[in-house]
Amino acid sequence: MSDKTNQQWGGRFNEPTDAFVARFTASVEFDQRMYLQDIRGSIAHAKMLTQAGVLTEQERDDIIRGLGEIRVEIERGEFEWSIALEDVHMNIEAALTAKIGITGKKLHTGRSRNDQVATDIRLYLRDEIDLILPEITRLQQGLLTLAEGEADTIMPGFTHLQTAQPVTFGHHLLAWFEMLSRDYSRFVDCRERVNIMPLGAAALAGTTYPIQRDLTCELLGFSAPAENSLDAVSDRDFAIEFCAASSVLLMHMTRMSEELVLWTSAQFNFINLPDRFCTGSSIMPQKKNPDVPELVRGKSGRVYGHLMSLLTLMKSQPLAYNKDNQEDKEPLFDTIDTVKGCLRAFADMVPALESKKESMREAALRGFSTATDLADYLVRKGMPFRDAHEVVGKSVAYGIAQNKDLGEMSLDELVQFSDTIEQDVFDVLSLEGSVAARDHIGGTAPDQVRAAVKRGQAKLDQRV
Amino acid sequence: MSDKTNQQWGGRFNEPTDAFVARFTASVEFDQRMYLQDIRGSIAHAKMLTQAGVLTEQERDDIIRGLGEIRVEIERGEFEWSIALEDVHMNIEAALTAKIGITGKKLHTGRSRNDQVATDIRLYLRDEIDLILPEITRLQQGLLTLAEGEADTIMPGFTHLQTAQPVTFGHHLLAWFEMLSRDYSRFVDCRERVNIMPLGAAALAGTTYPIQRDLTCELLGFSAPAENSLDAVSDRDFAIEFCAASSVLLMHMTRMSEELVLWTSAQFNFINLPDRFCTGSSIMPQKKNPDVPELVRGKSGRVYGHLMSLLTLMKSQPLAYNKDNQEDKEPLFDTIDTVKGCLRAFADMVPALESKKESMREAALRGFSTATDLADYLVRKGMPFRDAHEVVGKSVAYGIAQNKDLGEMSLDELVQFSDTIEQDVFDVLSLEGSVAARDHIGGTAPDQVRAAVKRGQAKLDQRV
Amino acid sequence: MSDKTNQQWGGRFNEPTDAFVARFTASVEFDQRMYLQDIRGSIAHAKMLTQAGVLTEQERDDIIRGLGEIRVEIERGEFEWSIALEDVHMNIEAALTAKIGITGKKLHTGRSRNDQVATDIRLYLRDEIDLILPEITRLQQGLLTLAEGEADTIMPGFTHLQTAQPVTFGHHLLAWFEMLSRDYSRFVDCRERVNIMPLGAAALAGTTYPIQRDLTCELLGFSAPAENSLDAVSDRDFAIEFCAASSVLLMHMTRMSEELVLWTSAQFNFINLPDRFCTGSSIMPQKKNPDVPELVRGKSGRVYGHLMSLLTLMKSQPLAYNKDNQEDKEPLFDTIDTVKGCLRAFADMVPALESKKESMREAALRGFSTATDLADYLVRKGMPFRDAHEVVGKSVAYGIAQNKDLGEMSLDELVQFSDTIEQDVFDVLSLEGSVAARDHIGGTAPDQVRAAVKRGQAKLDQRV
Amino acid sequence: MSDKTNQQWGGRFNEPTDAFVARFTASVEFDQRMYLQDIRGSIAHAKMLTQAGVLTEQERDDIIRGLGEIRVEIERGEFEWSIALEDVHMNIEAALTAKIGITGKKLHTGRSRNDQVATDIRLYLRDEIDLILPEITRLQQGLLTLAEGEADTIMPGFTHLQTAQPVTFGHHLLAWFEMLSRDYSRFVDCRERVNIMPLGAAALAGTTYPIQRDLTCELLGFSAPAENSLDAVSDRDFAIEFCAASSVLLMHMTRMSEELVLWTSAQFNFINLPDRFCTGSSIMPQKKNPDVPELVRGKSGRVYGHLMSLLTLMKSQPLAYNKDNQEDKEPLFDTIDTVKGCLRAFADMVPALESKKESMREAALRGFSTATDLADYLVRKGMPFRDAHEVVGKSVAYGIAQNKDLGEMSLDELVQFSDTIEQDVFDVLSLEGSVAARDHIGGTAPDQVRAAVKRGQAKLDQRV
Repeated sequence: MSDKTNQQWGGRFNEPTDAFVARFTASVEFDQRMYLQDIRGSIAHAKMLTQAGVLTEQERDDIIRGLGEIRVEIERGEFEWSIALEDVHMNIEAALTAKIGITGKKLHTGRSRNDQVATDIRLYLRDEIDLILPEITRLQQGLLTLAEGEADTIMPGFTHLQTAQPVTFGHHLLAWFEMLSRDYSRFVDCRERVNIMPLGAAALAGTTYPIQRDLTCELLGFSAPAENSLDAVSDRDFAIEFCAASSVLLMHMTRMSEELVLWTSAQFNFINLPDRFCTGSSIMPQKKNPDVPELVRGKSGRVYGHLMSLLTLMKSQPLAYNKDNQEDKEPLFDTIDTVKGCLRAFADMVPALESKKESMREAALRGFSTATDLADYLVRKGMPFRDAHEVVGKSVAYGIAQNKDLGEMSLDELVQFSDTIEQDVFDVLSLEGSVAARDHIGGTAPDQVRAAVKRGQAKLDQRV
Repeated sequence: MSDKTNQQWGGRFNEPTDAFVARFTASVEFDQRMYLQDIRGSIAHAKMLTQAGVLTEQERDDIIRGLGEIRVEIERGEFEWSIALEDVHMNIEAALTAKIGITGKKLHTGRSRNDQVATDIRLYLRDEIDLILPEITRLQQGLLTLAEGEADTIMPGFTHLQTAQPVTFGHHLLAWFEMLSRDYSRFVDCRERVNIMPLGAAALAGTTYPIQRDLTCELLGFSAPAENSLDAVSDRDFAIEFCAASSVLLMHMTRMSEELVLWTSAQFNFINLPDRFCTGSSIMPQKKNPDVPELVRGKSGRVYGHLMSLLTLMKSQPLAYNKDNQEDKEPLFDTIDTVKGCLRAFADMVPALESKKESMREAALRGFSTATDLADYLVRKGMPFRDAHEVVGKSVAYGIAQNKDLGEMSLDELVQFSDTIEQDVFDVLSLEGSVAARDHIGGTAPDQVRAAVKRGQAKLDQRV
Repeated sequence: MSDKTNQQWGGRFNEPTDAFVARFTASVEFDQRMYLQDIRGSIAHAKMLTQAGVLTEQERDDIIRGLGEIRVEIERGEFEWSIALEDVHMNIEAALTAKIGITGKKLHTGRSRNDQVATDIRLYLRDEIDLILPEITRLQQGLLTLAEGEADTIMPGFTHLQTAQPVTFGHHLLAWFEMLSRDYSRFVDCRERVNIMPLGAAALAGTTYPIQRDLTCELLGFSAPAENSLDAVSDRDFAIEFCAASSVLLMHMTRMSEELVLWTSAQFNFINLPDRFCTGSSIMPQKKNPDVPELVRGKSGRVYGHLMSLLTLMKSQPLAYNKDNQEDKEPLFDTIDTVKGCLRAFADMVPALESKKESMREAALRGFSTATDLADYLVRKGMPFRDAHEVVGKSVAYGIAQNKDLGEMSLDELVQFSDTIEQDVFDVLSLEGSVAARDHIGGTAPDQVRAAVKRGQAKLDQRV
Repeated sequence: MSDKTNQQWGGRFNEPTDAFVARFTASVEFDQRMYLQDIRGSIAHAKMLTQAGVLTEQERDDIIRGLGEIRVEIERGEFEWSIALEDVHMNIEAALTAKIGITGKKLHTGRSRNDQVATDIRLYLRDEIDLILPEITRLQQGLLTLAEGEADTIMPGFTHLQTAQPVTFGHHLLAWFEMLSRDYSRFVDCRERVNIMPLGAAALAGTTYPIQRDLTCELLGFSAPAENSLDAVSDRDFAIEFCAASSVLLMHMTRMSEELVLWTSAQFNFINLPDRFCTGSSIMPQKKNPDVPELVRGKSGRVYGHLMSLLTLMKSQPLAYNKDNQEDKEPLFDTIDTVKGCLRAFADMVPALESKKESMREAALRGFSTATDLADYLVRKGMPFRDAHEVVGKSVAYGIAQNKDLGEMSLDELVQFSDTIEQDVFDVLSLEGSVAARDHIGGTAPDQVRAAVKRGQAKLDQRV
């Protein structure tokens, strides 16, 4: 990068910027990734200025052509970014002026970097949300397909990581699907608040030029111009809201990751992850590590941190724009990259996981997982629930002492705890009987899982 | 609180709970505030169980009557809460059984504390959001009224806390109005995701009883039953989303607070806060401190912290319910209380602030606030913006040296910097001329402020 | 609480404080827990003022007697706290004046609430650290004793939650010991920075009275008076540092908790927690849940949140004291309570856990845990480590296909992968051989564990 | 970067790593900055292995030579980093083996990437702390020099941003000095806990080779080897502690920044920042913005976020190393860079700020800043403090109504409020009298400031 003095605001200054300060305060190294949005915004602005009589048609065409050339240069890696020109906006404008002369300088009429950068970020974030949404859908689609195939697979359901009741693996996967549905809706809501146009707010108070904000708004696909110029240049809610939605998404992914890591352990042994998603150890030759879920789990910290970073950033800032706000970009950009990377890794990997059905089933048979079914059985025979709970609790204590699960006890043994127990008890103590009996919307019964998959599919189909 | 052993789950246990552990793990001290939601949920559940044939009509009526009595006792402060009974749910159920006998034990049929508590929190939070929304509206209404009265008041607009351009005080207040509009919409969106019913998920897998979730859903005013039982008992997204929306709201209030504190300082001296919203010093007799905005500014930390607390809480939890989740309540409750307190304080105080118009105007006259207007003037005379910027920059440097603002210079002095400057320049260098010229949607012109107030009022009127 | 107007600073005010504002800004509901420190500080201040000639000996004695009576009233629950008197300081001073007349009013000479509250918090926190340190030691002592008894118990060591190498359970427990040693040292370092006396800074600039700060410093056991009055009244570093040290402690406890929860699962089945530290389920009669570690794990969120809260609170505050700082107390107090509760629960529970040695050993036999030992064996026979790694990797692939661990293969089978393997290989493939071979400081060999226990004990003994 | 398959752990794998997964899980793009520490660690390890008889002297010399060449290549930008080789460690080892053949593979004997990376980070962080400490000292030195020159400059002291009492500007600057002294001591304490050597922990359990940890410890300048191998590879406390100390430092810098921004505003007008530390506006030609303090204020968010990121990362990780930990580096590195950048900017800028003494003095004359002095005067005449407070409060109310400061009232006017007021009152109502009277350690009197500068200088001198 070159390092000349910035002539754009130099009039009242008596000495050039300190070299370290110039680097310290420049943003071009990270904001150049918004070059496309900056150019699109400038083109719309030029068209509007022409409509408003501020630019001639010739000037507009020169600007559009010049910006088009700059875009090509950037995309070919031939553009020379300069730290002395501070940011993506000044760099592009200077290049434009070098190309088309004095007309390049006219482009900045009726706007300021304050509304320009706010517009660019919103355009950029909107584009990225439009990439993130289908990636969530892709992961959800993978889950639906997997869940359908695992609608009958029985595994232990856990609370407190203790065996609780048998559930179907498909049902478990649909819990993940639900989390992601909420994430999807939060990003959609966030997108609506992102899609408001700051352009026209100028530095802070609006401009004296006869701008037509509705026109730029339409050209750039915004839903409305921002209502207040002071707010428009200083609002960064959308970045915070995006990071909050991303934090919840990543939190969900830590929960999935935690389970994937548990399930691939020798102790659980519920699933297999294909080798291509794992790595080994430089010292322990037998290792096959579930790196992807571990890393995704770790990346939650990054996104939580960025959320906190932006909330801290905005705390106590008086209106309108302050230089502090330059710090909005890196946390936002890294959140976007992280969300996209994690979603891609999961959308590729999750559908490829293989369940170890025998191992899951065996685990479900242990741990008195049908104890609630026995209690429910007693209630159906007329016992109040709380008393049935007590009876089953005593049978379990006996089972622990005798090292026998409930289904392994004889009728004689069971009758010790309540004489209402009869031969038909063994139906409710089977895993299949247990899961099939939870047969209502939201329940774990295989038929319910299949019905939920259908509803889920309909939801995804509507998104297209 | 009494301290007996909890008999509700004691069957398989060989020794009573350690006394410290019982206190350490109990939640009744803070979850009792959901007693009303717990009772409402139980009544709906009892009605549904009757419809489903699990309870008789007599049993249902006994339960409803018993719960009604308990509610009265709680509200009169006559209810004896017991730590040994752990939580609000067990306390109420035990009291019900003491009142109506064995039927009380039947109420828990087909549900678990896991879906019960998730239902209670959502009902509770929904009720609180329904108190918060009108309080935001009240504060916004105060701002609108104030803004209308201050549509013509001129003050300096700042960027980087340096004088930037003149703005109207009404315009500035409407920037706050816009922030709050976004907050309102975020709470509305959050409420939609809160209003989903976990009841029926039971412990984690659904229940074997023939429950009718649509019925309870309708009775409790939920928009839909949760789609997946594992997700339903472990989802706390709604609490996080509420704290995220609250964090952004509090962030906005720190920005308002920062300005209120600045404006009441001797240095700014822009406004007066009535004595009743201020306090004094125990040692400095002259002090009148803007305690309310300072305290609100400080309370942002509390809400940010609660958001981080909940995100941390949920990180890496495997499905389904874990005891960790008990820690969801205190951060959520304190966030609710803080939001309500801060909104109330501001909705009371802000409309009572008095602007010091002379002092604001005087400040706007200083600091070369109309420099941009001069540049725009030169552009209208045909100079490219960047060159005009340079000309004005030099005039300002001269003004600093001579200790003269632009409006105080003679035409001869101004002409030194560009001979296109003529007598009509003094129109654009006036404060009134400057603000009136920013006459487009979102601009600071008094007419635009009045139009914005009208649109804002229409928006508030629609909410009712 | 009574609700009269605060007369302490009313002179310049024209209207009484708004009733809601009075409640909103009062701190007495939570700062009254510092009553003892407030009284101790006042007694030291009175003694100093007497020495300095500001109070007579009679006045000093009246003050000390009055404060002593107030202390008794508070501890008996007979003291009437008033919200109108805002905080603990004003409440106690008003009560003192009611008791001893005009002399009570003289106590505030040469100080302000700003230095008074800063002094009280430091005294309070110092007292609490002095309770926390021995509680860490108690937990560490429990770990040492347990580790000594488990020095020979073999379990699988994990990385990525995949079986890595056999370790001894005692060694694993000592890893926890090390974490706590660092926590201890951080609290000790923090205590040094806490133990600096703000008293004498008065409101912000010091006082015109001839105070003797060295005397109060000595009377209150501080190590030095604060060097700068502006800093003294506005510094809250110590609270942040305490919360940071607590966050790391709680983070460590989440790691221990995570393992305790894993180990009590049916899948791991490594340990048993006594019933008195567990609770059951209201619906699933077989459940015995590890509530204490789960809850402690959840409480990390609370402490992380408080840290973030205080950091946010202090961000961008200009000097000196601002009302925002009133928000320092609740996060700090709740952190203290949480740390003490969690340490107590663990110090009680951890020494009572029972290892299931057979189950641990069986797990260590699975998962190719001695693969590294085989590689090391090959290196000792002259093969470069990276090549040995490759050889063992292939043996493991074969073992997975054949469902045989390394120790279960015949020499013929092993020789397929490298003909340098001989009969003596089976020594290194035994669990005992594997752990014993890691015989250096920090290694997992039983003898090293016993030596580490001795060093750890010596460290704890030095603390007394 | 090239993209071949990693052969280092491939033995047991059936398919190559997915290309996206390889990029997603690689760390070499950010961990290559530790190349120097990695090489130093390897050299020490090679020397130790030779001493232990594992390597020959020739092998050691080849390794040292090879690593030296690699270092030169890296520093010349000629080294080809490969993502397929995952991280800095594998890249350097592969290059070494390419250079010196089979001996390169032997270097990894008795260590693992787990202890290697933990060692590298600690060495890296120690080096960076050793750069940060003198930078804090440089900023403190600048403050001391400035404070000495401003020991007699009077400005208003604020609480609640309301004029409180006159203070000296030197005294205010020394408050900043004190904050930085605590920061310094926290980094020193942190460094001690950083400076512990993980090397020798190998993967998690130690190694079977006869390693001599004391030797590597000495060669690398660590104070001691880590006591427990499981802890050694999984401990990241030091990174968290560093970020916590950095967060407090940045918090202090936000407070300084806030004041610098206030003071350069037209409203305060207390100081001037040289042009070289400021930037202008692309649209408002008169602007000179205090970018550096604003940006530093904003950067606090970044560092707070990284702290939260690391705390989140470590939450609930079971022992020992997990892939999550790879996420420790970027937050740590960015914190280091931010701390160094902010300190450099301030250490350059702060000593260059120019006070506007007249403007400060004028501000101190307004706002009844000597009201406390009047109260103290009355106390010295025998009135209890609380009564004196009331008297002065009434005089202030009168002054506000009459628009007269206390020093501007006549004796007759003052006597209305208390007849103990006499002619000598005007001595205490002067600014010079007020500050000089606060003449005790920590007080604002010019002589105290000069004494504090001397003590501060002695402290800095000791550090060298």
